[in-house]
Amino acid sequence: MADQTKILLDESELPTHWYNVVADLPAPPPPPLHPGTHEPIGPEALAPLFPMALIEQEVSGERYVPIPEEVRDVYRLWRPSPLYRASRLERALDTPARIYFKYEGVSPAGSHKPNTAVPQAYYNAAEGVQRLTTETGAGQWGSALAFAAAQFGLGCEVWQVAASFIQKPYRASMMRTWGATVHSSPSELTEAGRAVLADHPDSPGSLGIAISEAVEAAMADEETKYALGSVLNHVLLHQTVIGEEALAQLAKVGDTPDLIVGCTGGGSNFAGLFFPFLREKLAGRIDPHILAVEPAACPTLTKGEYRYDFGDVAGMTPLMKMHTLGHDFIPDPIHAGGLRYHGMSPLISHLYELGMFEAEAIDQTACFEAALTFARTQGIVPAPEPTHALAAAVREAEACKETGEEKVILTALCGHGHFDMAAYDAYLAGELSDLDYSQERVAEAMSRVPVVDG
Amino acid sequence: MADQTKILLDESELPTHWYNVVADLPAPPPPPLHPGTHEPIGPEALAPLFPMALIEQEVSGERYVPIPEEVRDVYRLWRPSPLYRASRLERALDTPARIYFKYEGVSPAGSHKPNTAVPQAYYNAAEGVQRLTTETGAGQWGSALAFAAAQFGLGCEVWQVAASFIQKPYRASMMRTWGATVHSSPSELTEAGRAVLADHPDSPGSLGIAISEAVEAAMADEETKYALGSVLNHVLLHQTVIGEEALAQLAKVGDTPDLIVGCTGGGSNFAGLFFPFLREKLAGRIDPHILAVEPAACPTLTKGEYRYDFGDVAGMTPLMKMHTLGHDFIPDPIHAGGLRYHGMSPLISHLYELGMFEAEAIDQTACFEAALTFARTQGIVPAPEPTHALAAAVREAEACKETGEEKVILTALCGHGHFDMAAYDAYLAGELSDLDYSQERVAEAMSRVPVVDG
Repeated sequence: MADQTKILLDESELPTHWYNVVADLPAPPPPPLHPGTHEPIGPEALAPLFPMALIEQEVSGERYVPIPEEVRDVYRLWRPSPLYRASRLERALDTPARIYFKYEGVSPAGSHKPNTAVPQAYYNAAEGVQRLTTETGAGQWGSALAFAAAQFGLGCEVWQVAASFIQKPYRASMMRTWGATVHSSPSELTEAGRAVLADHPDSPGSLGIAISEAVEAAMADEETKYALGSVLNHVLLHQTVIGEEALAQLAKVGDTPDLIVGCTGGGSNFAGLFFPFLREKLAGRIDPHILAVEPAACPTLTKGEYRYDFGDVAGMTPLMKMHTLGHDFIPDPIHAGGLRYHGMSPLISHLYELGMFEAEAIDQTACFEAALTFARTQGIVPAPEPTHALAAAVREAEACKETGEEKVILTALCGHGHFDMAAYDAYLAGELSDLDYSQERVAEAMSRVPVVDG
Repeated sequence: MADQTKILLDESELPTHWYNVVADLPAPPPPPLHPGTHEPIGPEALAPLFPMALIEQEVSGERYVPIPEEVRDVYRLWRPSPLYRASRLERALDTPARIYFKYEGVSPAGSHKPNTAVPQAYYNAAEGVQRLTTETGAGQWGSALAFAAAQFGLGCEVWQVAASFIQKPYRASMMRTWGATVHSSPSELTEAGRAVLADHPDSPGSLGIAISEAVEAAMADEETKYALGSVLNHVLLHQTVIGEEALAQLAKVGDTPDLIVGCTGGGSNFAGLFFPFLREKLAGRIDPHILAVEPAACPTLTKGEYRYDFGDVAGMTPLMKMHTLGHDFIPDPIHAGGLRYHGMSPLISHLYELGMFEAEAIDQTACFEAALTFARTQGIVPAPEPTHALAAAVREAEACKETGEEKVILTALCGHGHFDMAAYDAYLAGELSDLDYSQERVAEAMSRVPVVDG
């Protein structure tokens, strides 16, 4: 059995519950604060933006949250997703390590994002919301929400970071194919957008700006709400289907992971993979090393400060305690657009402070080198984001060749690279460089982060 | 069980043999002829282009051909592919019909083409070939061969039709990611290319021209051979894994098809789907209606003549008896680039003459209309090619709504549309028109087809 290429689960084995890691922590993460008063906010403060069901999940302490049947019905379009044993990569590396990757690129939008887009669309539709707004960087999240909105008859309006809107036009085409409306951000449609354009008419945009625009548009209309693709607790909760399935799949082949490695932008893919394994680790049943990998150009965990900051550039969101480079820091343009966020999920930041995993930053050229090895052996062309985790997995497998250890390495290949081929062109043409993060610009951005006690 | 979304097979159920429909026909298809003498050619005439193992398969009368373990090992990267029950589409159409689609977009290259690219690369490598040349239109086949060549350490050189090379640059990026070299065709690298460029410096190219270039390059080097992605018997043979799996999958849910519908360009996807079902039909075990759908702009089966013609525009290939619009007919540019071939597989043409299936032509706007309905219900954005079969499936399902018949409809979704989003843009912008085939240009092209007895 251990030599299977794909470890599949039957649809009857699709998870019935999401796992809420908060229930198993010694202390909950610090609460979000009101941006003006700096006092903890209650669930009602989020009501203009999110439906009550999601707000309840955001603050829930319940260990397991049932997945509605209507959501499972859409999940079945691609879930359970396959767990792959990367045997051909192992052979190419001549390593005794066993490398597994959970592949989320089989979803219609091509990434893990629909795992949360679908329940978000469902709960909004169930509460009578007519339309969703959101932001998107590389386009993965916007595609996912456009797909999910179509499944529940919701309108969908997406602000896409201008740089991606221009570089990757086909992500917007995909959103439109599913019925969404797509704007380049900053746009003239919102005050937040107009303010940026007034100072920087050629602004390439950023996730922080696009979030401000989408939030503003949702606030302006009673029948419209907002959806966020990462960072928040309910998003991380929904993503735990990844890890729950992977646990069951590894059990089928009788393996337990020695290393779990994922890439982090806002953190939802990494959380989805490792939370269920962390539950098993906290219960003493397994003891994997857990590693987050972020881009060297946007090193939120490894070089950011752990303090209260805004989620968006305009300072419209509640203050969240998280690892941050400053809410108006705009990372250099790297090809892993999905990892270019100034902050890190508060829940993941909290777990990092508790010492529950380690983190490192890797340069983009090392990531593409691993991506090429992977594509030429396993076939799948990965999105630039998960190549960060692949690079660490390959390095570990090469170390095992030296030591002879038969380590079991588990990673999440959270998306395919079909809309990222320009990045591969740049790498193959030798045009990619290693962008370090800008220490000075970060220091400047951090100077504008409000000082909050606690 | 009938309400499963995906009917999966375990890797242990991966077919062990390809099925050769020739063994079950009352008469074999007419032999290929020498382009000069018009005499039947023997296997040795193909030796400069193909390895002996493939030539043997090309002329084989054996019912079953074993699939080498090395090929099955690569197949396992994505096979067995899922058979989907399109329940969400059925609900949207409010039809009592049951619609199944076999999804080949899960392969690394995103289509059914790797099913034959992998064995072709394997047999070439096994016989010491160092490098493969080929042509590609929309880029599906070139991608597939690039991927397959990487698996067996072969070099790979692809001539891509200039129009596609410009319109769809990311297919070439994908080929390069897997290590292939890609040229725009017509190119200055071959006599065939130079001849076209001399008369038409801005030629958008055609599959026929690109075939001439790839064949010429293979003939010029002893260690290089040529690979074709459709039309030939051995290609159709390799694709039968599609139908064999679908047979097993439908059996798991206790359904038998009333209608099998596939799209046809060269014919390999359609053949792969229906040959195994035809075997069952000829044996009297099932009685499905079988339908090929081709684009109205390139109606090879429905409006072409059944006679001997060349496979390429320069007249370098043997003469094959097939449905043809004339070897130098260049169809209008439609978005289903993979269906823009002037001829039809000789084996499929033979079966058509024997009355073993029916054919019709559908306009591209009707195809995209069906594609949008499909994408918004089932999630997957289809390649333009299989939307021809989808349009017919949807029409049949709508007819069932009128009659109340619970027909079982089976189609093959032979690829995703991730590299075809410009086509969706054009459709959504209302810029697509229905291009009829050019009767006058076909008549002119047919006047240059050699007259051959028999």
